[in-house]
Amino acid sequence: MKIVIVGASGTIGKKLTEAVRGENEIVTAGSKSGDVQVDITSTESIEAFYKQVGNFDALISVTGNGYMGPFKSMTAKDFNIGLQSKLLGQINLVLIGQHYVNPKGSFTLTSGILSIDPIIMGSNLSTINAGIDAFARSASIELENGVRINAVSPGVIEDSPGYFPYFPGHIPVTMEKVTNAYIKSVFGALTGQVFEVW
Amino acid sequence: MKIVIVGASGTIGKKLTEAVRGENEIVTAGSKSGDVQVDITSTESIEAFYKQVGNFDALISVTGNGYMGPFKSMTAKDFNIGLQSKLLGQINLVLIGQHYVNPKGSFTLTSGILSIDPIIMGSNLSTINAGIDAFARSASIELENGVRINAVSPGVIEDSPGYFPYFPGHIPVTMEKVTNAYIKSVFGALTGQVFEVW
Repeated sequence: MKIVIVGASGTIGKKLTEAVRGENEIVTAGSKSGDVQVDITSTESIEAFYKQVGNFDALISVTGNGYMGPFKSMTAKDFNIGLQSKLLGQINLVLIGQHYVNPKGSFTLTSGILSIDPIIMGSNLSTINAGIDAFARSASIELENGVRINAVSPGVIEDSPGYFPYFPGHIPVTMEKVTNAYIKSVFGALTGQVFEVW
Repeated sequence: MKIVIVGASGTIGKKLTEAVRGENEIVTAGSKSGDVQVDITSTESIEAFYKQVGNFDALISVTGNGYMGPFKSMTAKDFNIGLQSKLLGQINLVLIGQHYVNPKGSFTLTSGILSIDPIIMGSNLSTINAGIDAFARSASIELENGVRINAVSPGVIEDSPGYFPYFPGHIPVTMEKVTNAYIKSVFGALTGQVFEVW
C-alpha cells in the first residue's frame, strides 16, 4: 500500500510514520521536510504535490495550525489563520486528492477533543476540529470508487507535556492509542467516522 | 430589551422579527435591507455597523451563505465562500460584538442539522454548521460580564419547500419551533448550548 503522510515530522507524524511503515511504501510530506514538500494553505502547492506524489492508496493528514489566544482580543484575521490552515488546508488535501487516490483508497484527517470539550483560548481550534469531523461525515457520502474518509480526534497527548497546563483535568492519552486510530482508519473498512481518542 | 437581528429579511428572519418584537426595541439588519446594513464578510463593515447600532442586549444572526455543490467538482475557492460567510461572518459578529454588547446580553447564531446529518452536495454546510456549534460551546466559557452565546440548529423548515428535494427523508420542522429556539436563547438563561430543532 502506498501511504502518504502529510505532517510526518510532527509529534504524531514521527511516531505514526514508524507505526504504519511495515511493508508499505511511505511518502513523507511536510511544509519544509519529508520526501515531498507541500503548503496546505495553497491550492497551487497541493496540486503540484499530488502531481509529484502520483496515485496513492491512503493519505493521512496530521498537520495544520490553529490560533490559540484569548477570546477578548481575538480578531477575524487571527481566526482565519486556523480556518485556512488546519480546516481548509486539510479539506483541500481531500478536494484535490480525490482525483489522485486509488479506488478503495482512504483519507484520514486530524481534528481534536476541543470540538466538544473546550478550553480557555481554544475557540478557534474548537471550531476547526468540529468542522473537520463534520467534513469527514459529509464527504464520506459523496466520495466515489469505494474511497473512504475518517477523522481522528485525539485528546491531549502524553508526548506533548507543554500543552498540559492549557488542558486542566484532561487525562493525556498515549501515543499508541492515537497511532492505532490512524491504523484503524487506513487498514480498516469504516468511513465517515470520527475516531475519538480520549 | 434592545435586540439586533442580522438577516431580518430572510425566511427565518421575517417571522423571528415578529415573534420577538413584543415590547422590545428591534434593530433589523441585512446586507441590503433593514434599519442598518452590514456585510458580515467584512471586518470594516461590522465595525461600522456596531458603531451605528450602539450598545445592545441581544444579537441574533440568521444570516450567512454556504456553498452547495457536488463534492467531485468542489474547489477550495468554492468551500471558502461559506467559511468566510456563514462561518467566519457569524463568528466575527461575536468577536467584534463582544465589545458592544451590554452585561448579561447574548449572542445567538444559526447553524443547522447538516452538522450531524449530511446530505449530498452539503459538505460545505456540514462543516460550517458543526463549526458554529463548537464556536458557541467554546466562546461561552470566555465571554465576560455574564454575556451568553448559543447556536440554533434547525432542520429543513416547512416554509422552505424548495429545499425538500435535497433533504430526502427529513421531516420539515415548523417555523414556530424554530423561532421559539431563538426566543429560548435570548430570553432564557442558558449559554454554550446548541438548540437542535428537528
